Amino acid sequence: MATLRSLYRSDHADRQELNTNFNVDYVVHYRIPPGGKNEAKAEAAFVQLIEALAKVGLATEVRRGDDTSLLIFVKIASENLLKQQIYRYRVQDWLYGVRTSAPSKDLTSYFEEEPVVEAEKLRLVYLLITKPKAEGGAGITPKIGHWKYVCSVFPLHNHAFNRNWIKQWSTKYILDDSDINEIRDKFGEKVAFYFAFLQSYFSFLFFPAAFGFGAWLVLGQFSWFYAIVNCLWSVVFFEYWKKKEVDLAVQWGVRGVSRIQHPRTQFQFDRETKDPVTGEVVKVYSPLKRLRRQLLQLPFALACLLVLGSLIISCFAIEIFISEVYNGPFKQYLVFLPTVLLTIFMPALTTVLTNLGQRLTEIENYETQDSHQAALVQKIFVINFITSYLPIFLTAFVYVPFAKVLVPHLDVFQVTAQKFTRNGKVETKAFQIDPDRLKKQIIYFTVTAQVVNFLLEAIVPILKRRVFKAVKEVQEEITHKETPEKRPDPEEEAAFLDRVRNEAELDEYDVTVDYREMVVQFGYLSLFSVIWPLTACSFLVNNWVEARADAMKIAMSSKRPIPWRSDSIGPWVTSLGFLSWLGSLTSAAVVFIFSHDPYGPEGDPSNLKAWALLLSILFAEHLYLVVQLIVRYVISGLDSPGLQKERAERFSMRKLHLQETLGEELAESAAAADFTGGETITRAALEEEARLASVSGQTGPGQVFWQRQRGAAETIQIGRLFISETAAANKTKSS
Amino acid sequence: MATLRSLYRSDHADRQELNTNFNVDYVVHYRIPPGGKNEAKAEAAFVQLIEALAKVGLATEVRRGDDTSLLIFVKIASENLLKQQIYRYRVQDWLYGVRTSAPSKDLTSYFEEEPVVEAEKLRLVYLLITKPKAEGGAGITPKIGHWKYVCSVFPLHNHAFNRNWIKQWSTKYILDDSDINEIRDKFGEKVAFYFAFLQSYFSFLFFPAAFGFGAWLVLGQFSWFYAIVNCLWSVVFFEYWKKKEVDLAVQWGVRGVSRIQHPRTQFQFDRETKDPVTGEVVKVYSPLKRLRRQLLQLPFALACLLVLGSLIISCFAIEIFISEVYNGPFKQYLVFLPTVLLTIFMPALTTVLTNLGQRLTEIENYETQDSHQAALVQKIFVINFITSYLPIFLTAFVYVPFAKVLVPHLDVFQVTAQKFTRNGKVETKAFQIDPDRLKKQIIYFTVTAQVVNFLLEAIVPILKRRVFKAVKEVQEEITHKETPEKRPDPEEEAAFLDRVRNEAELDEYDVTVDYREMVVQFGYLSLFSVIWPLTACSFLVNNWVEARADAMKIAMSSKRPIPWRSDSIGPWVTSLGFLSWLGSLTSAAVVFIFSHDPYGPEGDPSNLKAWALLLSILFAEHLYLVVQLIVRYVISGLDSPGLQKERAERFSMRKLHLQETLGEELAESAAAADFTGGETITRAALEEEARLASVSGQTGPGQVFWQRQRGAAETIQIGRLFISETAAANKTKSS
Repeated sequence: MATLRSLYRSDHADRQELNTNFNVDYVVHYRIPPGGKNEAKAEAAFVQLIEALAKVGLATEVRRGDDTSLLIFVKIASENLLKQQIYRYRVQDWLYGVRTSAPSKDLTSYFEEEPVVEAEKLRLVYLLITKPKAEGGAGITPKIGHWKYVCSVFPLHNHAFNRNWIKQWSTKYILDDSDINEIRDKFGEKVAFYFAFLQSYFSFLFFPAAFGFGAWLVLGQFSWFYAIVNCLWSVVFFEYWKKKEVDLAVQWGVRGVSRIQHPRTQFQFDRETKDPVTGEVVKVYSPLKRLRRQLLQLPFALACLLVLGSLIISCFAIEIFISEVYNGPFKQYLVFLPTVLLTIFMPALTTVLTNLGQRLTEIENYETQDSHQAALVQKIFVINFITSYLPIFLTAFVYVPFAKVLVPHLDVFQVTAQKFTRNGKVETKAFQIDPDRLKKQIIYFTVTAQVVNFLLEAIVPILKRRVFKAVKEVQEEITHKETPEKRPDPEEEAAFLDRVRNEAELDEYDVTVDYREMVVQFGYLSLFSVIWPLTACSFLVNNWVEARADAMKIAMSSKRPIPWRSDSIGPWVTSLGFLSWLGSLTSAAVVFIFSHDPYGPEGDPSNLKAWALLLSILFAEHLYLVVQLIVRYVISGLDSPGLQKERAERFSMRKLHLQETLGEELAESAAAADFTGGETITRAALEEEARLASVSGQTGPGQVFWQRQRGAAETIQIGRLFISETAAANKTKSS
Repeated sequence: MATLRSLYRSDHADRQELNTNFNVDYVVHYRIPPGGKNEAKAEAAFVQLIEALAKVGLATEVRRGDDTSLLIFVKIASENLLKQQIYRYRVQDWLYGVRTSAPSKDLTSYFEEEPVVEAEKLRLVYLLITKPKAEGGAGITPKIGHWKYVCSVFPLHNHAFNRNWIKQWSTKYILDDSDINEIRDKFGEKVAFYFAFLQSYFSFLFFPAAFGFGAWLVLGQFSWFYAIVNCLWSVVFFEYWKKKEVDLAVQWGVRGVSRIQHPRTQFQFDRETKDPVTGEVVKVYSPLKRLRRQLLQLPFALACLLVLGSLIISCFAIEIFISEVYNGPFKQYLVFLPTVLLTIFMPALTTVLTNLGQRLTEIENYETQDSHQAALVQKIFVINFITSYLPIFLTAFVYVPFAKVLVPHLDVFQVTAQKFTRNGKVETKAFQIDPDRLKKQIIYFTVTAQVVNFLLEAIVPILKRRVFKAVKEVQEEITHKETPEKRPDPEEEAAFLDRVRNEAELDEYDVTVDYREMVVQFGYLSLFSVIWPLTACSFLVNNWVEARADAMKIAMSSKRPIPWRSDSIGPWVTSLGFLSWLGSLTSAAVVFIFSHDPYGPEGDPSNLKAWALLLSILFAEHLYLVVQLIVRYVISGLDSPGLQKERAERFSMRKLHLQETLGEELAESAAAADFTGGETITRAALEEEARLASVSGQTGPGQVFWQRQRGAAETIQIGRLFISETAAANKTKSS
């Protein structure tokens, strides 16, 4: 059986099953539950599934999956239907202002001008499969309700493209726009935005890496100059990205797609009302009710802080006790105790809290997938913030300033330890603050953890799949012995079906995970890199690998993602802004606390002037805000390819419309400047018209008034008379 | 001679000259300079003026103005030209996204559906007069360059409307939307936005007035509870207004008009280039050069602070010395010395600085009038901020906490005073902090100053006009005696011309002044009302009068304003946000410093715990920011008439377009929900098509794959077989 990894060996490059998808658009992975009653249900649902798909114009073929599942291959039955669908969605885009110009009505020439890309086709077919029946889709909702036997609906990888993609990227230093555009065409804008962000971030990292290296050589730790430059960099990067994001959205023609939102099928409405304006039936859920539920986020955040915080603090305290106070037997093993505790409990607690967050988000009951996702991301960010940064906060703002006060309270461990030792005495040494602790911790989080994380991400899924496959093979072997031989796959499809069965087993790609990693990383840089200026260097190396690893993850360890559109990196931009802002506070505090004495104030909190600390934080924060305003203003003034494109489109539209309404020769000049006034109206004609109007019938004070001077010539004559009279009067006066 | 005030006496209501404008759209006030050489120039320019106006289709009549000026009456010559112009501008609006739908091409019925309002007509005629010749206007730029003899170009008041307006408003407690809409139709959106803002602010004031009154009774001064509620209120008001602003803009059909910007005639470009995209010739001014000049704002702000600050501090010091230290002769007169000094120097310095600000803004050389205005408003705000709030800042944060330390340094006055007294001895008394000083000051600024300001605003212009008129009449009398009698005005026009001569003398209405007043007032409420909770009560009364006074100012003491459009209150919203935010800081600081001891810490700064003060400020500020986020989120979820209107327009447009492209019957359903898929395509037809396609020619692995199961029925049949096989296998396995 071909593992996916083996697909990328060069000798397999010309294997037929990898170079064709047999025109399959989607595969529906349909699980057959064991048990007689369920089987009947599954069969009935299967029939309905095929009928529903056929009804909306999708052709189907069914094949065996693994032992307990079917693979249903789906493709759009006619080219015509596809074009109709795409045309309609493009018209919708235009109506919502996503496209500047309406698609032309001549379909044949239109699709030659703006051909259908792979991502667009796949997106529309997916919508056709999953949209509710009332809106013209087949209404298939994987894993939910009636369709619970549908495990997944996924498109097939384009392995020819993937192979080429991975090969190109692994031999390239810098990714350029065309690389990102290729991803966009294959995997949609949502994934492309991630890579675009990663790429921008990577390019921006060159500066802090170089500057950080210099600072490390020259300025050392805790330099206020480094802190300022670092903050400034993070502001510039943040503002740059916000502009870049809009720019990309314009270039990709997706600006504003977040307005065309996909309704969540799980959304539960209080009542249906008719929209007073449009007469549409609208599903309403009381926003006040939602707000009340959203307020649960506060106790949720507190719970996270409490649960994760107490774990982190306990481990921290144990660690300090063992490494810096305890001096008895087994010390060399005991130092690993906190790490072991963290490794065991942290993932468990994080999972529990993440599930809780998911549950909360479901309770909040959003109407659209976007707002649901954004709310979930918020909660995930809270959890990640605590797990990632709290240990360092503890070291920097509790351990170093207050250690001498707090360490004696670690007696509790001593007492505990005494119970387990024979003579009731625990050997201790005099407590000494570890001056390098903070730096060591930063290095751990920014180097070691990144490497470990990368390995976990790259290797664990492969191992997992291997183990699963092994188990399955053993199971199948047992089954095969007992059951009649299944009919084999047709020869020309066998390899292809094997490959599809493999793809069906893969995880779904979740871009959120990758964003989270990058945003947390940005946080280390912004919040704490003043402690260890080499941080950015480590990230620079890490991110070069990261981009390739993520590409490999999509190409090899995941099902092909549904090519959703999006016009930004969504809620993550808020997180970035928050971290960048918080960086100004922490950097100021760290510099203030540690800069005078590189080892901190040696555990005596009274050495610290609290007001001076607060003042420097306050000052740094407001400096940050002012600088942000200025940077934003400057960046908003810059031109960009996206804005140019938009301007060009608007210009051509303006010209076109004016040609239609005003005629060719005028439009040429009118489109460029503002609209010209009365060139077509000659002066004489106007005067004539005015005179006619005034003569014909209407009389009254207005008419008499306007008839005193007939035409400009008379006005000029009378005016001249007045002027000379006035001048004469003036002369008399002054003489 | 009729004064304008007399126009509003009821007995004049039926006077003919007040009820008609003789169809005059604009009056050009043309000054004839004394002196032979200038006279010739003025005459030549006059001829060019009339010709330029005639060329763009404007009819003119000339009449005598006062002794040294002409009045040129302008109206658009033909109804047709007007409609053409308006149609073009509406098309432009549509192209820029201001209007949702394009104007229909049938002009006659179109103008019946959407008639021209007065403000629209006047705006277009003004544009026709003032736009550069290259863009189809007459290119008249009052007071500038070639047109320096043109004093002003102004529309005539609609006195029938004005009379009615003032009468209605003075008998009404609450203004409603229709009142604001009337203003919009007559004076344009820019003025209407001011009144809408004033009205919203007024309604919002009811809450702090009631709550403040309660707090004054129950909580007293310096209550943290009042401070929190007040901050919350200011956040809610600010966020509400930002939404209301957008809403009004949508309702008035001006959302986004700030994008259609009027170029500044004074803009000087570095070079002209062709836009790479559109080929338009664009005038470019280096943004870097502008940025460099914008940086001058920093020294400008510092200069303002230094100049105004030193004046304020000196007067403050003198005042304290005289009122609280000095005890010698003439004390009862000397206490007025600081007030006299302030009254003399403050307006002078403010004028100088404002002029400097204007000069700076000109140097910054903006391309559009909007950005110029915004930059100017910024500078005016800085000046006003200092003059309005610095005295209170001094009292609250310098005088009260540090007086005991600082007052001894006032010796300098003592020494000075000694020189002027005979015996060289100045009687002094022991210094005592005036505990009520802060409150007195707030009352002065929020009650006394408001009343004084109102009187100045209402009465000074009238006095000024009277004096001018008297001087002029005397002058004219002298002149008349010496010069030959002028021909009198024609009888039927005499009264009308008199009225126009009066209007020509009036000041131009500047809405900025009124905004400034309200924003500064909002600042007192947000920054300092915790010192005196009755502040809002005073403002409530004041603003009722203010709205009427401003209406009278427009109707009687000003030329009719050019009815410009605008889609917001512009740069003032930034100032409001800033003051609201700053309020959280100052309130926290004031409460912290004064709440323990109502008379402050009695001049001993060491009593204050600086870190606690800073901490409370820091806390208050961040609380404010969090609350703002929440309020913004909640308000963004609310529906509003404007949003409803927009939705309705978009809906009808969507429907219309779909009717055109898809045909009537489909559009009905498609417009409502998303687009339906394949209802028109029957299942059988699709399957047939797929089969045909697969049979006809194309063969290959894909074709064979899709031909295994012909149609959904076969797929179902095979699928069922697979399911039962699987089930059988499962049974065997489990048995």
